[in-house]
Order: sequence, then structure tokens, then C-alpha cells
Amino acid sequence: MTDTHAAREGAFNAAVLAATLIGEHAADTVEILNKLPPSDAADVVRLLPRDFAIEILDKPELDFGAEIIEALPRHVAAPLLAGMSADMAADIVQQLEEPAKTELLAGLDDVSRGAIVGLLAYPENTAGAMMTTEFVSVPGNWTVEQTLQHIRQVERSRETVYAIYVLDPVTRRLVGAVTLRRLISGEPSANILTLVPTHDPITTFPLIDREEVARVITRHDLLAVPVIDKAGHLLGIVTVDDIIDAIIEESTEDVQKFGGMSATEEPYMQIGLLDMIRKRGGWLAVLFVSEMLTASVMQHFEGELEKALVLTLFIPLIMSSGGNSGSQATSLLIRSLALHDVKLADWWRVMLRELPTGLILGGLLGAIGFARVVAWQKLGIYDYGEHWVLVGLTVATALVGVVTFGSVSGSMLPFALKRVGFDPASASAPFVATLVDVTGLMIYFSAALLILRGTLL
Amino acid sequence: MTDTHAAREGAFNAAVLAATLIGEHAADTVEILNKLPPSDAADVVRLLPRDFAIEILDKPELDFGAEIIEALPRHVAAPLLAGMSADMAADIVQQLEEPAKTELLAGLDDVSRGAIVGLLAYPENTAGAMMTTEFVSVPGNWTVEQTLQHIRQVERSRETVYAIYVLDPVTRRLVGAVTLRRLISGEPSANILTLVPTHDPITTFPLIDREEVARVITRHDLLAVPVIDKAGHLLGIVTVDDIIDAIIEESTEDVQKFGGMSATEEPYMQIGLLDMIRKRGGWLAVLFVSEMLTASVMQHFEGELEKALVLTLFIPLIMSSGGNSGSQATSLLIRSLALHDVKLADWWRVMLRELPTGLILGGLLGAIGFARVVAWQKLGIYDYGEHWVLVGLTVATALVGVVTFGSVSGSMLPFALKRVGFDPASASAPFVATLVDVTGLMIYFSAALLILRGTLL
Repeated sequence: MTDTHAAREGAFNAAVLAATLIGEHAADTVEILNKLPPSDAADVVRLLPRDFAIEILDKPELDFGAEIIEALPRHVAAPLLAGMSADMAADIVQQLEEPAKTELLAGLDDVSRGAIVGLLAYPENTAGAMMTTEFVSVPGNWTVEQTLQHIRQVERSRETVYAIYVLDPVTRRLVGAVTLRRLISGEPSANILTLVPTHDPITTFPLIDREEVARVITRHDLLAVPVIDKAGHLLGIVTVDDIIDAIIEESTEDVQKFGGMSATEEPYMQIGLLDMIRKRGGWLAVLFVSEMLTASVMQHFEGELEKALVLTLFIPLIMSSGGNSGSQATSLLIRSLALHDVKLADWWRVMLRELPTGLILGGLLGAIGFARVVAWQKLGIYDYGEHWVLVGLTVATALVGVVTFGSVSGSMLPFALKRVGFDPASASAPFVATLVDVTGLMIYFSAALLILRGTLL
Repeated sequence: MTDTHAAREGAFNAAVLAATLIGEHAADTVEILNKLPPSDAADVVRLLPRDFAIEILDKPELDFGAEIIEALPRHVAAPLLAGMSADMAADIVQQLEEPAKTELLAGLDDVSRGAIVGLLAYPENTAGAMMTTEFVSVPGNWTVEQTLQHIRQVERSRETVYAIYVLDPVTRRLVGAVTLRRLISGEPSANILTLVPTHDPITTFPLIDREEVARVITRHDLLAVPVIDKAGHLLGIVTVDDIIDAIIEESTEDVQKFGGMSATEEPYMQIGLLDMIRKRGGWLAVLFVSEMLTASVMQHFEGELEKALVLTLFIPLIMSSGGNSGSQATSLLIRSLALHDVKLADWWRVMLRELPTGLILGGLLGAIGFARVVAWQKLGIYDYGEHWVLVGLTVATALVGVVTFGSVSGSMLPFALKRVGFDPASASAPFVATLVDVTGLMIYFSAALLILRGTLL
């Protein structure tokens, strides 16, 4: 009894909610649906007008698109999938589990199914996987008026018409793109080819990485870039809104990787505790094991440490300075490489800049460090022993060495990673710090042996 | 003699280069011009067809736009500036020095000058400073055919027509936007208002920060967002290509800040050595001085260190683990806050997640650390003394404490910064590491006092 009542109440709420959502912006509706359990969200989606439901499912911000489609009766879900833009529908189908996947694909018309299955074949984060197959193309022997008529008739109310792609009437190869603005201003009886710009059209290929596609779109200020096969046939278009999402995702990944964790696409609150531990624990453990080398270095210099305990006082200071200067240089170069300000072949020029930069920065910190030792000694805050000047010199020398090493190695690491085919952004701040920590300790103890031999050591 | 010859040769080269550039993509031409000294680039620009020259000057990727405009004769530069989109022209005028600035503004027609001067009044990185004043607007009592005629006649070949903005015929307030696609499909005799969507238009205000404008455009998948004043009058539009540039700049800033340096917009190779030292040295010195607290903590526990030198061996390991877990948590939360996945009010929920995450991660590292002590002891690699089990326990306990503290404080720092009005991205990895280093040492020594009292200490 109570169950039936609750179910009725649930149904009632869905209807009320659906009614209030009609006329709202799709983005706002998506935000509300994201707060509901997927089954409730599906109840609401089912009650929305078809076009509005499709617009909502097309939003990349919708968190549980696949769950909603799966929760809907197949005969409701299939036309929604078919109505969606093919790239978004493919994203959802990819997340579906069997038997829902097969059942839903079977319920689609041949054209929609073909488009979705075709897109699923491309690897993630490539132009092929991002592109939509819903574009307007016309043969090059049409007139402006024919093209306008075609746009009026073809029902494409959802995706914006970014441009009209003109194909060679015989070979069907892409000849160029005409903007709607040009089309409207064109002489109705003129051949559409007269409106195509004379230079080669900007295009990309289906297996190109999304970062490169983003670069092409940004470079040429395009609203969409056509994706063609080797023969020059138009396969689809990647639109600027998908590119923005890709750019945001990439930079989130960059920051997360640089922070020293595996990249995650999910919002923070939706990452399960176990998943979070996995994404962070792996890296943390690897770094921890590498950092164990510092303990080995310390053990190696144990005799010196015993003789000159005063040296231990500055270990954290010197290590952190190396790590900090390294992470500065790394962050600078990661972005420069990503934005193509700097090319792989420029590595030696970067090194020639980082070397003096590191020396000057190290000199700056060394001077502050030396001043600290002098000040504490003279003010009587701490007694560094009779050889306090030499201790101060050791610290200053070590700082120059460590900061220079940090700047140079921190700047070279992204190049090295890129050279061997990794993402330069994997050069995380913790990774750089670990690298510099071990070397930094060795630089410090070497400076000590050099300067303090015969006095403290 | 030689000078004249060289000058002639220079002029000759400019002409040849200009001739080869005609018909190239603007983006490629910009790249070539960026490699020339600005005066040579100006010689080339002067020889290009006017529309192409304007297209090139309109590209944000052109490095020396202001220098080129300044190097051109005023009577050549003025029509180019007038032809540019107002937002880009304003960017250039802002960089000009006197008397070029006044002279050039004086050479402009009233409309262009008014638009540029108007844009210059808005603070940097706001919708007002980013918007272009070249948009298509029509009164709401026009028909579809009148609107189409208007688009055909108004010469706006450079900026894409993103949408047609419909104004109230009496109050001139923005009523809504009509896409070109809708316009083409509309009945020519119908009133333009019949094509305006029923929901309120998405708009923004001139003083809104570019990050927020980017969010609006992304959220609603727009190609342009209209900027209105308080009374609802249309001031301009911010277009999606400007937004992409802004998003890329913001994420570069985020990575640089997170890497612990002042953000810089210039390409790496173009930053002068002195400028570089300033941008990096300031932060580095501040961090260095803060990190000096670690030396004070070490001095405070000097007695303990003398009694149990074995403790020093693990100082770098424990400090770095705290820093690493802190920078992971910080990078995660910086992005979550930037993407609005997490709101300021969610801080306690984040803390409730980071607490168990930190404890588990700390436990993991503690277990590895303890295993290391056991292994080295049993394998005879190093002798940690008779109380080696207690030493191992101290290290493990400290790791749990330090990693938990790192995760919690690293995640809370971006919230704290945002709360007091700073950019959460200022929570740099080095800053977090410094914070955690000092506390980490105290946690380590406290654990040692607790566990080793009566044995080693």
C-alpha cells in the first residue's frame, strides 16, 4: 500500500517538475536533473516535449545520460537517441551495458545506427570520436538559391548550422566551406562555388588528437572544422563547443597531473573514496619509494652528520628551495610546450636561459640564507659554533647549486618526457621535487665536504 | 651607399613576401610576420590588400600589432584600425604610446573612434573589454525579409554574423536573439519577433569577469553572448573565439601560479631575463623565508636530534610525503572550484572526504615506510639500532599524521583563499609544501617524543 502510494507520489512529482521545466533553458534543466536519481530524472525526461528532451540529452553537462536512456522504455529511448547529435549519442551508447546497448541500437533506424556505430570505431579524444556527422553539404553545381532551399527543408533545428560544405559534384571531395553570412549575401542564381574562398579549406583527419584539433580551431578562429578522410571526403565536423569542453578537460588534466595525481574527469564530489585512493595512492607510493633514496643519501653521509649536526638544520630549507625552483621552471615549460611557444628543438635555448636564471635566483636565496646565519649568530638567537661563517658559506653555496640544478632539470624534464612520447604535463611538481631532493642533498653534502673539510668535517 | 642599397633590398623583399602571402591563410601569414622585425612586418602589411591586412591585424596571435600600426604612416594605419573589429583595435590603441595614440585616434571617423574609446574605458579581462561592438541588431517590428536585406547590405565581411539581436522598437531593449539558421528558414513576410525564442535571452554585463563570461558561453553552448547595460540596452557581444583565448590564458595562469610563480602572458622566449628573475625570484624568496621556520623547528628539537641521529635520516622522506599529498589535494580542489563542481559552502564536505582519504593514504605510505625499516634492518643494509622497531613505528605514525595533515590542509587552502577574495589558484604547490613542511616536522618530532621517550629520547 505504502509502496504504491509512494510510487504514485513519485509519478506525480515528475509530472509537476516536467511541467515547470518546459520553457526553461536547457542548461538550467540539466542542472536540476543532475540532482535527481537517474530513474527519477528518466521519469521527468519522458514527460518533456521530444525536442526539449533531445536538447537536454545533447548537453555534455548532463551527468547520467546513459543511466537515463537505460531507465527509459526502449521505444521511448530509441527515438531520443536517433534525434540526438550523433557524437553525443555515441558517447551515451558507449557507456551502456549489455543487453541495453544491443537492444537500443537494434531499435534505431539504419542511418542513425550507422552514424553512431561509425563514430564508436574511433579512439577516444580524436577528431573522429568528437565529430558530429550532422553537417550541411551540397554539391558544387548547385546555386545559392538551391542551397538556401535545402537548408530550409532539411530539419536540423538542434545543431547550429556552422557552415555549408561544398563538395565536388563528381568526386564528392570537399572543395570548401561557405558561411551562412556569405550565402545570404550571395546572388540567388549564382553557383555556390563562387562563394567558396580561394584558399584551401582548413581540415583535419579523424585520428588527429583533440589537442591538435583545438589548436587548428583556435588558430583559424573557426566555428567548426571539417574532418576528411585521406581521399578528401567529408566525414563530419568538430564544432567549437566540443572544442571548448576539450580544452577545459585538457587543462584540468594538466593541473591534476602537475599536482601529482592521475587525471580524473569526474567532479570531485562524485569520485568514490576507493577510486580517489587509487588515483592518488599510486603516484604517492611511487614518489615515496623514489624519495626513499634521500634516506639512503643521508645514511651515506651519516658520519659527516654526526660530526656536524648543525648541517641537518638546513636540510629542509635547501631541499625545498630546489623543489620550488624546479616546479616553477616545470610549470612554465609545460605550458609553453602545450601552447607551442617553445618547440622540442628549442631545448638547448631554454637551458641557456635557465642556467643564468637559476644561478641568479640561487645567488639571491644564498644571500638571504647567509644573512640568516649571520643574523642569528650575531643576535645570539642560535650558536652555529666557531665555524659559523663556513657553515653559512656552505648553505649559500649549496643553495646556488640546488636552485640552478632545480631550474635546469625542472625545465628539461618536460622536454625529455615529450621526446619519449609522454605528455609533458606528467612532469608533476612532486616528481620534480623528488628528483631535485635527492640531488639537492648530494649537492649540499658535497659543498659541506669541500668547505668544511679540516674544520668541522 | 650601402645603406640605400640595403633599404632598396629591404623594400624589394617586402614586396616579394607580400605577393607570396596573398591567398595564404591569415593564421599562416601571422606566423611569418611574427618572425620579422615589426618595421619589416609593417612594410609587408602595407603592401597587402586592405581586407587581408585587416584580417591579419584582427588576429590575437599577431605579436607586434601595436608596433606595426605605429610603424605605418598615419594615413595608412587609420583606415586599417577603423576596419578592424573594435575590440582588437582597442587592444592595439591601448598599447600605443603618445603621440601615436592621439594622432591615430584623431585620424579615425567618429563612429570608430567612439567605439574604441568606449571599449578602452572597461577594466581588463571583463566582458566590456572583450566585447566587440560590431553586431547585427534590428528593431522588433521588422519582417524576416527586411532583416535579410539588412544583413546583405551592411558590409560586415570580417566578423562572422553569430546571431541577429532583436530590439524592442520603442525602448531599444534587447528582446532576444535569432540565429541565421532560423532566419533563413523563416517566412519572409513574418515579423522577426516570431522567430525569437520564448525564454529570456542569455546575457551578461560589461563588468563581469571573463571567467564568468566563459562559463555562460560554455554552459549554454553559445557562439556569442550579448553584453547589456542595467537598462537592458545592447552594448556589444563577446564571441566564442575570444572566449577560447581567455580560457587558454586563464589555464596558463592557473598552471603558472600553481607552479609557484607570478603569471605571465608572454611566450617563454620573449620574457627578458630580468623580468623572469622578478616573476620567479619574488615568490621564491617569500617561500624561502617561510621555509626558514623549518630550521627554527630543527633548532628547537636539536637535543632530540643529538640523542637520536637516526631520526634525521627520515626527515626528507616525511616532509616530501606531506608536500606531495598536499599538492595533490590542492590541484584537485583548485580545478573543482574553478569548474564550479564544488562550491565555497561545500568546504566541510570536502574536509569530511579528505580526512579518511588522508588517513588511508598515510596508512599506505606508513606501511611502506615501516616495511623499509624492517627490510633494511633484517637484510643488514643499515642498522637502525636496538630500538629499530620503535624507530619504524615513529616513521609510520608520522607519515599517517603528515599525509592526513597534507591532504586536509591542501584541500582547505583553496577554499580559504577564495573566501578572502584571492584566486584559489594562488595556492601553489610550493606554498602548500612549505606550509606542510613546517607542520610535518613538528608532527614527526612529536611522534618521536611520544613513541621513543624512555628508549632513545
